[in-house]
Amino acid sequence: MIDFERILANLQERAPLVHNITNYVTVNDCANILLACGASPIMSDDEGDVEDITTICGGLNINIGTLNKNTIPSMFLAGKRANELGHPVLLDPVGAGASKLRTKTAAKLVDELKLSVIRGNISEIKALAQGASSTKGVDADIADRVNARNLDSVVDFARKFSEKTGAVIAITGATDLIIDQDRVCIVTNGHPMMSRITGSGCMLSAMTTAYVTANPDQPFEAVCTAIIAMGLCGEIAHERLGAQDGNSTYRNYLIDAVFNLTARQLTEGAKYEMR
Amino acid sequence: MIDFERILANLQERAPLVHNITNYVTVNDCANILLACGASPIMSDDEGDVEDITTICGGLNINIGTLNKNTIPSMFLAGKRANELGHPVLLDPVGAGASKLRTKTAAKLVDELKLSVIRGNISEIKALAQGASSTKGVDADIADRVNARNLDSVVDFARKFSEKTGAVIAITGATDLIIDQDRVCIVTNGHPMMSRITGSGCMLSAMTTAYVTANPDQPFEAVCTAIIAMGLCGEIAHERLGAQDGNSTYRNYLIDAVFNLTARQLTEGAKYEMR
Amino acid sequence: MIDFERILANLQERAPLVHNITNYVTVNDCANILLACGASPIMSDDEGDVEDITTICGGLNINIGTLNKNTIPSMFLAGKRANELGHPVLLDPVGAGASKLRTKTAAKLVDELKLSVIRGNISEIKALAQGASSTKGVDADIADRVNARNLDSVVDFARKFSEKTGAVIAITGATDLIIDQDRVCIVTNGHPMMSRITGSGCMLSAMTTAYVTANPDQPFEAVCTAIIAMGLCGEIAHERLGAQDGNSTYRNYLIDAVFNLTARQLTEGAKYEMR
Repeated sequence: MIDFERILANLQERAPLVHNITNYVTVNDCANILLACGASPIMSDDEGDVEDITTICGGLNINIGTLNKNTIPSMFLAGKRANELGHPVLLDPVGAGASKLRTKTAAKLVDELKLSVIRGNISEIKALAQGASSTKGVDADIADRVNARNLDSVVDFARKFSEKTGAVIAITGATDLIIDQDRVCIVTNGHPMMSRITGSGCMLSAMTTAYVTANPDQPFEAVCTAIIAMGLCGEIAHERLGAQDGNSTYRNYLIDAVFNLTARQLTEGAKYEMR
Repeated sequence: MIDFERILANLQERAPLVHNITNYVTVNDCANILLACGASPIMSDDEGDVEDITTICGGLNINIGTLNKNTIPSMFLAGKRANELGHPVLLDPVGAGASKLRTKTAAKLVDELKLSVIRGNISEIKALAQGASSTKGVDADIADRVNARNLDSVVDFARKFSEKTGAVIAITGATDLIIDQDRVCIVTNGHPMMSRITGSGCMLSAMTTAYVTANPDQPFEAVCTAIIAMGLCGEIAHERLGAQDGNSTYRNYLIDAVFNLTARQLTEGAKYEMR
Repeated sequence: MIDFERILANLQERAPLVHNITNYVTVNDCANILLACGASPIMSDDEGDVEDITTICGGLNINIGTLNKNTIPSMFLAGKRANELGHPVLLDPVGAGASKLRTKTAAKLVDELKLSVIRGNISEIKALAQGASSTKGVDADIADRVNARNLDSVVDFARKFSEKTGAVIAITGATDLIIDQDRVCIVTNGHPMMSRITGSGCMLSAMTTAYVTANPDQPFEAVCTAIIAMGLCGEIAHERLGAQDGNSTYRNYLIDAVFNLTARQLTEGAKYEMR
């Protein structure tokens, strides 16, 4: 059993400062969800700025959603500095498999940095772990979806990827899988409406970085809790929707739910299985 | 009569993936409105990334709202690749007429790309079509406003611009005009509150790209429908506002209305005239 | 007494166009709060674009929140052009003290530009005015907080900084101080919830630029009014919150409150003291 109470308490008490090198599409939502969960965000992506900024932070979230020639070197500089300082580093390989630049950059980040967590959809993680996938842009390809039949093979490649990288591998979708060298956590919280807003993945990556930063002695459980929390908040947000509400209100309610989330809600609402 | 039902059905079924090279001010709203209308967004603006990304997409939305020396070459690269692939390309010349860089870049995009749609306010379109205009920043100049007296002359220059470029010209404001070589559609849906939020134009351009991408056999009708839909959603959103609500809630309600929009609402609420 | 009615009336009537060179985290909120208060926003940060754009505007808001090698030169170019034209220029030195690049860039902007207003948290202003501070990222360090015991010394260094720069110095936090060569205004409007959203400082800077631009004959009172208005709107927004609401809804309500703000609300709700 995951000790949700302790994990949330650590997050509230330690209020980690998280350095984000992220895309400009969902950056505001990432900042607000970090504040919602009790952490503090800083965004900085210039080569001349990132090492100083990551030094005063507790963790680093690298998201390649709108990578470019200026920010790519910053990802490596910040990542190496964070590694030197022992800060957890999360990689969100947005769109890996969708372009050569994304696949190559994500692969190089995996090679050159010590990553604590790699979080993406199944197509992105496959592109990174196996070097081949069909990706529908920044969304997972339907052919890749995790289901009862392919679960074992997904766990198998993710475990190998975890052994190779030392990272916790988080594959999120309708069913979420969190995998390290020993354990598998299968999470079924969430709501299909989460795929109708931009940034649910990016927000989850930012929030996961905060959870892991505040819980250095149990990174696997911290990742699981962040993913359960996001899924549960997706359910809570959906329950609030009225007849005229759509995805914009849903986004607000999702962040609001994170803001109000309690350990009790987690204990009662979590749908997960440890293997 | 426009067949709203078929146009919306195509959008829902084909769920087009739209590549956006757009400004960082309203990019999140553009992504969410694309998701709201049934499409999927990808944002990518690095020279090394845009050709791969546009290749896997169905349409391209180029918005020069915060153009810069890194993203301008990407607009041309992506546009040319999209042209090769026969994808529709929309240009939103934000602030054309307000600075030399904006006017020159927009004019060069018009010259070098085959554009399916050019959508802007009257000042921007005049700056592009006639090479002269007074522009109040990114808003239309009051002296340029479309009214009963100048309607014919506006239609005249827009038609010539359509003949020159081959694009559907959409001039939006209190009254919207959609013009190609043969037809004019005059739309009076909308609400003044739409000018009190940032991004109503940018969102419309993104959404129009999705409509046109999903309806390749009737691009003119697709543009008209997108513009009617946005105006109608602006009306629906305004009806929802309570006494304490302002422009931030209005933005959410606008996107929500797009999320919930039906062909029946369009049929009953559309205010347009074809000439 | 500040003549709130006249200051708001000037803002509504003059509807100033404000050029923003700002970060990509909170830029959408900055645009929407400018529209909410009756102004119009333009964002432009390319070296080839900023001089033209600032020329057609009334005021300039420089925010270094996500400064980079491309936008830093643009800040100087735009600032010098605005100075030539006599436009008010506001500097928001986000994260000064947190990295060498931020501290150095902010200091150089102070040296080379004639600034009308410098607005930041106490740690940022100390870093700039005294060249030393401990900064918790982009938030004020707890050791720096303004309280009854250190108020006189804070006023003292801020006044010296105002004398050196000619700018109105605005130090915002739980208590806000606005200081020029002769006066001090202490504002206690606001709500702790404002620190749980990203961008409350950035939005305030954007809005303050609009207030000062519309009230060139009384810049000190304009800054005070903008800060009182923001704090009061933070209170109004908090009163609207329901049990399930969190920081995302709060952000919307804050902007909504600015949209609906009246001189009467300001007169009745302002909590300030002039010294």
